[in-house]
Amino acid sequence: MGKIITMGEIMLRLSTPGQSRFVQTDTFDINYGGGEANVAVSCAHYGHEAYFVSKLPKHEIGQAAVNALRRYGVHTDFIARGGQRVGIYYLETGASMRPSKVIYDRAGSSIAEACPADFDFDAIMEGADWFHWSGITPAISDASAECLRQACIAAKKHSVTVSCDLNFRKKLWTSEKAQSIMKPLMQYVDVCIGNEEDAELCLGFKPDADVEGGSTEAEGYKGIFKGMIDTFGFKYVISTLRESISATHNGWKAMIYDGKEFYVSKRYDIDPIIDRVGGGDSFSGGIIHGLLTMKTQGEALEFAVAASALKHTIPGDFNMVSAEEVAALAGGSANGRVQR
Amino acid sequence: MGKIITMGEIMLRLSTPGQSRFVQTDTFDINYGGGEANVAVSCAHYGHEAYFVSKLPKHEIGQAAVNALRRYGVHTDFIARGGQRVGIYYLETGASMRPSKVIYDRAGSSIAEACPADFDFDAIMEGADWFHWSGITPAISDASAECLRQACIAAKKHSVTVSCDLNFRKKLWTSEKAQSIMKPLMQYVDVCIGNEEDAELCLGFKPDADVEGGSTEAEGYKGIFKGMIDTFGFKYVISTLRESISATHNGWKAMIYDGKEFYVSKRYDIDPIIDRVGGGDSFSGGIIHGLLTMKTQGEALEFAVAASALKHTIPGDFNMVSAEEVAALAGGSANGRVQR
Amino acid sequence: MGKIITMGEIMLRLSTPGQSRFVQTDTFDINYGGGEANVAVSCAHYGHEAYFVSKLPKHEIGQAAVNALRRYGVHTDFIARGGQRVGIYYLETGASMRPSKVIYDRAGSSIAEACPADFDFDAIMEGADWFHWSGITPAISDASAECLRQACIAAKKHSVTVSCDLNFRKKLWTSEKAQSIMKPLMQYVDVCIGNEEDAELCLGFKPDADVEGGSTEAEGYKGIFKGMIDTFGFKYVISTLRESISATHNGWKAMIYDGKEFYVSKRYDIDPIIDRVGGGDSFSGGIIHGLLTMKTQGEALEFAVAASALKHTIPGDFNMVSAEEVAALAGGSANGRVQR
Amino acid sequence: MGKIITMGEIMLRLSTPGQSRFVQTDTFDINYGGGEANVAVSCAHYGHEAYFVSKLPKHEIGQAAVNALRRYGVHTDFIARGGQRVGIYYLETGASMRPSKVIYDRAGSSIAEACPADFDFDAIMEGADWFHWSGITPAISDASAECLRQACIAAKKHSVTVSCDLNFRKKLWTSEKAQSIMKPLMQYVDVCIGNEEDAELCLGFKPDADVEGGSTEAEGYKGIFKGMIDTFGFKYVISTLRESISATHNGWKAMIYDGKEFYVSKRYDIDPIIDRVGGGDSFSGGIIHGLLTMKTQGEALEFAVAASALKHTIPGDFNMVSAEEVAALAGGSANGRVQR
Amino acid sequence: MGKIITMGEIMLRLSTPGQSRFVQTDTFDINYGGGEANVAVSCAHYGHEAYFVSKLPKHEIGQAAVNALRRYGVHTDFIARGGQRVGIYYLETGASMRPSKVIYDRAGSSIAEACPADFDFDAIMEGADWFHWSGITPAISDASAECLRQACIAAKKHSVTVSCDLNFRKKLWTSEKAQSIMKPLMQYVDVCIGNEEDAELCLGFKPDADVEGGSTEAEGYKGIFKGMIDTFGFKYVISTLRESISATHNGWKAMIYDGKEFYVSKRYDIDPIIDRVGGGDSFSGGIIHGLLTMKTQGEALEFAVAASALKHTIPGDFNMVSAEEVAALAGGSANGRVQR
Amino acid sequence: MGKIITMGEIMLRLSTPGQSRFVQTDTFDINYGGGEANVAVSCAHYGHEAYFVSKLPKHEIGQAAVNALRRYGVHTDFIARGGQRVGIYYLETGASMRPSKVIYDRAGSSIAEACPADFDFDAIMEGADWFHWSGITPAISDASAECLRQACIAAKKHSVTVSCDLNFRKKLWTSEKAQSIMKPLMQYVDVCIGNEEDAELCLGFKPDADVEGGSTEAEGYKGIFKGMIDTFGFKYVISTLRESISATHNGWKAMIYDGKEFYVSKRYDIDPIIDRVGGGDSFSGGIIHGLLTMKTQGEALEFAVAASALKHTIPGDFNMVSAEEVAALAGGSANGRVQR
Repeated sequence: MGKIITMGEIMLRLSTPGQSRFVQTDTFDINYGGGEANVAVSCAHYGHEAYFVSKLPKHEIGQAAVNALRRYGVHTDFIARGGQRVGIYYLETGASMRPSKVIYDRAGSSIAEACPADFDFDAIMEGADWFHWSGITPAISDASAECLRQACIAAKKHSVTVSCDLNFRKKLWTSEKAQSIMKPLMQYVDVCIGNEEDAELCLGFKPDADVEGGSTEAEGYKGIFKGMIDTFGFKYVISTLRESISATHNGWKAMIYDGKEFYVSKRYDIDPIIDRVGGGDSFSGGIIHGLLTMKTQGEALEFAVAASALKHTIPGDFNMVSAEEVAALAGGSANGRVQR
Repeated sequence: MGKIITMGEIMLRLSTPGQSRFVQTDTFDINYGGGEANVAVSCAHYGHEAYFVSKLPKHEIGQAAVNALRRYGVHTDFIARGGQRVGIYYLETGASMRPSKVIYDRAGSSIAEACPADFDFDAIMEGADWFHWSGITPAISDASAECLRQACIAAKKHSVTVSCDLNFRKKLWTSEKAQSIMKPLMQYVDVCIGNEEDAELCLGFKPDADVEGGSTEAEGYKGIFKGMIDTFGFKYVISTLRESISATHNGWKAMIYDGKEFYVSKRYDIDPIIDRVGGGDSFSGGIIHGLLTMKTQGEALEFAVAASALKHTIPGDFNMVSAEEVAALAGGSANGRVQR
Repeated sequence: MGKIITMGEIMLRLSTPGQSRFVQTDTFDINYGGGEANVAVSCAHYGHEAYFVSKLPKHEIGQAAVNALRRYGVHTDFIARGGQRVGIYYLETGASMRPSKVIYDRAGSSIAEACPADFDFDAIMEGADWFHWSGITPAISDASAECLRQACIAAKKHSVTVSCDLNFRKKLWTSEKAQSIMKPLMQYVDVCIGNEEDAELCLGFKPDADVEGGSTEAEGYKGIFKGMIDTFGFKYVISTLRESISATHNGWKAMIYDGKEFYVSKRYDIDPIIDRVGGGDSFSGGIIHGLLTMKTQGEALEFAVAASALKHTIPGDFNMVSAEEVAALAGGSANGRVQR
Repeated sequence: MGKIITMGEIMLRLSTPGQSRFVQTDTFDINYGGGEANVAVSCAHYGHEAYFVSKLPKHEIGQAAVNALRRYGVHTDFIARGGQRVGIYYLETGASMRPSKVIYDRAGSSIAEACPADFDFDAIMEGADWFHWSGITPAISDASAECLRQACIAAKKHSVTVSCDLNFRKKLWTSEKAQSIMKPLMQYVDVCIGNEEDAELCLGFKPDADVEGGSTEAEGYKGIFKGMIDTFGFKYVISTLRESISATHNGWKAMIYDGKEFYVSKRYDIDPIIDRVGGGDSFSGGIIHGLLTMKTQGEALEFAVAASALKHTIPGDFNMVSAEEVAALAGGSANGRVQR
Repeated sequence: MGKIITMGEIMLRLSTPGQSRFVQTDTFDINYGGGEANVAVSCAHYGHEAYFVSKLPKHEIGQAAVNALRRYGVHTDFIARGGQRVGIYYLETGASMRPSKVIYDRAGSSIAEACPADFDFDAIMEGADWFHWSGITPAISDASAECLRQACIAAKKHSVTVSCDLNFRKKLWTSEKAQSIMKPLMQYVDVCIGNEEDAELCLGFKPDADVEGGSTEAEGYKGIFKGMIDTFGFKYVISTLRESISATHNGWKAMIYDGKEFYVSKRYDIDPIIDRVGGGDSFSGGIIHGLLTMKTQGEALEFAVAASALKHTIPGDFNMVSAEEVAALAGGSANGRVQR
Repeated sequence: MGKIITMGEIMLRLSTPGQSRFVQTDTFDINYGGGEANVAVSCAHYGHEAYFVSKLPKHEIGQAAVNALRRYGVHTDFIARGGQRVGIYYLETGASMRPSKVIYDRAGSSIAEACPADFDFDAIMEGADWFHWSGITPAISDASAECLRQACIAAKKHSVTVSCDLNFRKKLWTSEKAQSIMKPLMQYVDVCIGNEEDAELCLGFKPDADVEGGSTEAEGYKGIFKGMIDTFGFKYVISTLRESISATHNGWKAMIYDGKEFYVSKRYDIDPIIDRVGGGDSFSGGIIHGLLTMKTQGEALEFAVAASALKHTIPGDFNMVSAEEVAALAGGSANGRVQR
């Protein structure tokens, strides 16, 4: 098991109970989540020493976010405390043909206003095995992007493997801005995770298939993957493929390419989906565990896609599954019989 | 946007949480609903000035019903206050092959004992664009039927378009009684909504297909629709078609006929259904909006059927969807991807 | 309607709300249940005088278990009071490819430490029509097995029909231990319920099909059934057949053999499953009612399989359905239309 | 322990959670209750065979009322099934200077439309030790009053002790109507429970103290009690005395007179009150148990007043306390130390 | 009844259930509130046409705030829609010696970024009887202060009575900044509400008593009040006096001075307090109703203090009491007897 | 801040919501708690490195107990994993004169079956500043007592201060058994916490005052304290004094003696009590923090008694208060004004 670092924002998630709409609820369910925090929780569940790097206010809502991570075994020693607010996202869970809705209220959060002096990146990366971040972290603010750049430099100095989930978010920045920040950061990245849309918007690669329409063609990705490795020197390029049949029914698989072999995972039919949010992050958590501990990229990918399929059945952003549970599913036990 | 009047009963709905049976629950979820109230809420969500006409007790339960309407933007100026009780219906939500159950406890409600003097129909219909009612309103009591008749007369005097959802309810009256009341009211109706069973029981038209069995044949309706227009001079006859596969899985489409063209909508596969109640009313709300604001009956029908498909995914009687959301679904966006 | 006796353990069931995992919940939903208690509740719902025989502590948690039975009409006159604790099982409900999980905490419960002197089996069996037990009861403890043996002897003395649901539980005993206890008890059994796996583990019969894999072949059972009747002299051998497609989607049917005719029921497609636990017990309750009140084994089996299909849609261990509701489903009304 | 009969209405109680007002709640807590039903539950908790006589609809809401009684050990064999509805009362719980509010919706309930043919009073009173009713039962309807009269006649025929809680309800009848019905019924009554206001409004006795104002003078009651015994031949006259300091803080004591000795109980200071409803009924249950099983009227009264003090700390109409718990409080253990 | 305008911010209130601390809750109760919104809701409950003026985002959380006001009868026609976020405050309710805690997260809300062009103050003040605001509104931002100034000018132009609740908030501005903004606004104010601390911090008046310590001396206020009227020409100066005995037990009274008579209200002992937040606002709502509809300042004050005493017993910011309920308490009915 | 070790059992606490009785609830609130675990959580809140030593099963309920500790910052590195079950206690919260009730179901828990080999006491005590345990730990089982004895020996070897809360539990052992185990353990104890009843039952000291009756006389303790120091060589003897006025209203203070000065704290009047459980443990946590970081025993005691007064206002076993909050109360700020 390794020491794994992730860095980004953890938000307060306020979701309506069941399938209620925003305008009809009188309570919010509280969860905490965010791309890199979710990855840290996944890794902690697989037995790694996972550290989440971020900044949170000193008040009780900030503390509750810290506690949510501690509860699930994530180390919070490197979370700076200060600033004004915890970023929020409101979530309404859809059903059938009604999509889920997310309203972000994250401007001005503590991490958006953090500066490199808030973190001792040498101490953070000392002895670490893996550093993971997503495209959301540099998109939050220029200050946040600079923090991330310094984290990457420190990671490379300490020979830490770096993975990046491109994860383009149009509410946070434009494709132009994204490319201006993300492209220079790619020199630090060993493992690149992202679908064709992310690749185009963050890195300028043109997709060949119509992902929006739900028809996905795995093989079409091979060319993109090869081009990405040629350009940026990644060790692995990886993508998930989601078929959106309805808000509660998706197909789910993934692909990996190491410059030599192109491997496509088995496909899961997820019906019903309990909570889609964090599905991609749970995949990243799974692939980190897989690449760190398994023999082949195929085994790693199968672990990651099974892990993220399970995430779709669990409420909240975090993927609370053990490596044993994931392995059982990846090994073929998907019939859902009661475990007594 | 127009001024839209609906008239009928709004009831206190007491439903068991989740899929609990009546005998095992210790709490009831509270909603307020009723055919015409539901239509008013739909219209208010599309931006119309919607007025609901009814009578409710002065006490706090009556007030809570008023508040439920105000909350969603329905004008309650024309709700008379007085009488003894708010009608109730108990709802147990089914799943899979277990059907939902409704127990009515509505006898003696304020609207059942209302009289024409409770309402100033001239003021109500002044400047209105549309008046909608269902077959439930005259079925509640003879007094209620007389109130409705006077409302129809006032509507015609003020050149208001009148729509009627036939909606036969065997717990409220017999087919003979229904025909004796409903047939004379048809002279005021421009837009008639009802499936073949309603047409037979309320108006004496014989259906040709076996709706109960779930196999529906849209074209079989054309003859009935033509006959209804010939007899009553409706401008439009409209019906929804439900395929009941299970309590949580239905097919859903609709048909419209304007005396010239017979149009059948696209079919939605709704799985899972979150709350079926109010599905027909949300269709009526959609068709009113469609016929008031769109160019063709086909566009209006597609809007209405998409609106009511969405209703099946929302808890409670009311359809809380914007015109934009409905238009997105009618335009083909049914894949349920998260809206961020 | 008859006097029906069941004997076993009733446990406190602590389940996470919705689809929450154990580690993320802050409340437990309380239900009480256990194989034979569930059967008693089913029988009481069909109008029988159902008595549950067990032992429970005198404290309030024991009383709450008694009250849960009384609430649904089960007679609790023969429940001895004493001992230290109510057995517990923790339940986490799965979804899609994530299985439900059960954690048992039942050691040291009052019934496990009961002795024959706690019960007056002559009084219990006097005038009874049916006595039902499952393989769980003798597996709880040697003392419990001895209580059961004496109950069987008393049942035979009073000419009571005895049914047994083999229900092998590997957490409670080994196959060797089970066979040493169960085989001698079979002399008292008229109606034997159990799938091929139970037959092998409790009675030493070798299954021919791969039930674990989800592919089931009804006809393959005929040979086993015949062998069981030849060996033990059962009047009926019965088994359910579950197809586990996912945690929330199962196929469900059953078979019966009376030594002459082998009958296979219709198959139900259950989607979504609300609560699987108690599915087998609700089948036993249905078959007891069917064999006691219907003309043919086929009618009885169709009633039982419809009853247990409905159970899958009801939260908790108990099957809260009336004979009328079961008969409606067995008669073909599975379309889930709202019952008004 | 004895066989105790009570007769009256059991209603569905819909109460707002916590201290929410009617207009702000989205759920109702469900309880079932009613004067005589509450008395039956009290008696069952003390170990008596308690039977509740009433009429309830056959549907599931009626069944849930039956189940609520069975759950707590009350026999429901003599509850007739039929009629249209379960009476309802809505409850909003106050706090501090804000009073609790009750809205009744009980017209047309099954018991209000019951007739003597619904009950076999000979079977009901056979072997009974006590029959209890309150002034609410004859106030519900003339039919209900006639049922009650026949029950009283049967009780006397079978030498059953009869107690009556006068319990005048101004929403149900006028003082004139009450006196015309109640006075003739007093010939059957052995134990009369009621404060000075009830005595005046039901029986025409003029009170001397200002109960409304909260200042109560026990001794002032002695004269009234003596007069009541002289006129009606009661064996005991009993009254509780409530000091209403606020909605959540009351003083509570009681008095009894057997024609010879006038006994005043100790006073309890109840703060906070959790649920006041059913306080008087729990007193009646306590006095029945006390007079049936204790040596002196003083002991009986102390038991009853302690029992009803405890009721104020328990949510719902029913008083869920054992005789041991009541005796401990009556014996002086009011310090609230944790019972481990 | 009059047309009453209030202007300010309405926030999303997220409170922990019961007495849970922030760090231990998994759900938040949702309420909407804010000083001037609360006043509008009070006035609507007394039968006035109350209009709330503010700005809210177009998204669903903004809509939910609008709906909360409409639900309770407040007109929302003058709420501008736009901007980025709804201000939030987190609330943890204390008990006994543990104080309640509020964490504000309101920076950047739509109203803070509103400009005068968002509002048509002439239309708003046309025909109005009263305009109320508090010191929070100009403290939110300079833009908000300018909006308010223009509203005051329009109010005076239309001869509208203006009231101001000084309500100093140290988290929003310093005393220096407050005085620089508030003093010039006093020329528009007819009715000034504020305790001695507010008077000092907003207007520069020095208090004579130690309010923090809980000992309050009504008469000490007379001098301050006289000085305030002399300086600013108010028609009335008014203050509440809170005795903080514990988080759940307060004394509560108020004083008014019209330049001639100094009147002190009766004192209420509030125990337990259910929800303190909005207590001052409910007082302002009461005094507006009192001064608009009653003969003397004394009657108006007694109404206001009774209204706000009741508020302390109601969950949420809003005071949901009718004028009849307030009048009953002001008239002396504080014993909390159940209202049937 | 120091390294603090506590050792004992952490149990799953299942409590009824609000003031519901055991027999009427359908859900349990989940908390985890136990004497020494509670002390660890208190210390972690004050900023210490707190380690809890125990044994828990590997399954998810055991994991949830671990997570509850991690959530609040307690280190769980020294919790052995294995064994069969998590001990349980059921809690029903009383009100007014109705006491709270606890039902224990802890036999056979993992810690009861732990052995010294499960723990590396040298590693645990290395560098520690304080080791705390209570009389519950050795009472659980002989194995547990032996584990504790070895922990004490290791603590002394590493010069760790040892405190013991005597905490006699009659459900776990007799006074004779307790004395045979506890007396020899006193040689390792520096700080002894316990009231006169504990001193008598665990150590054989005879109390002089009637604690059961609620009248407590602080000075009466001085003699006992002196005797205890003379006999066992404690550095400090400490006791809390609870006045049980009702289940929801207590007086609370404490005393300390260091062999020279006898100091009595201020008294707190706690009304209402939200949750009494863990009150004594929160006192122990406070006294450890006080004695470790403050100058005088008086300051330490005032901190401890204020900390435990606050605990009574917080749901659950754990005391979630910061040192700043405790200091504010100890410093006199008990008026409960809202903290904004």
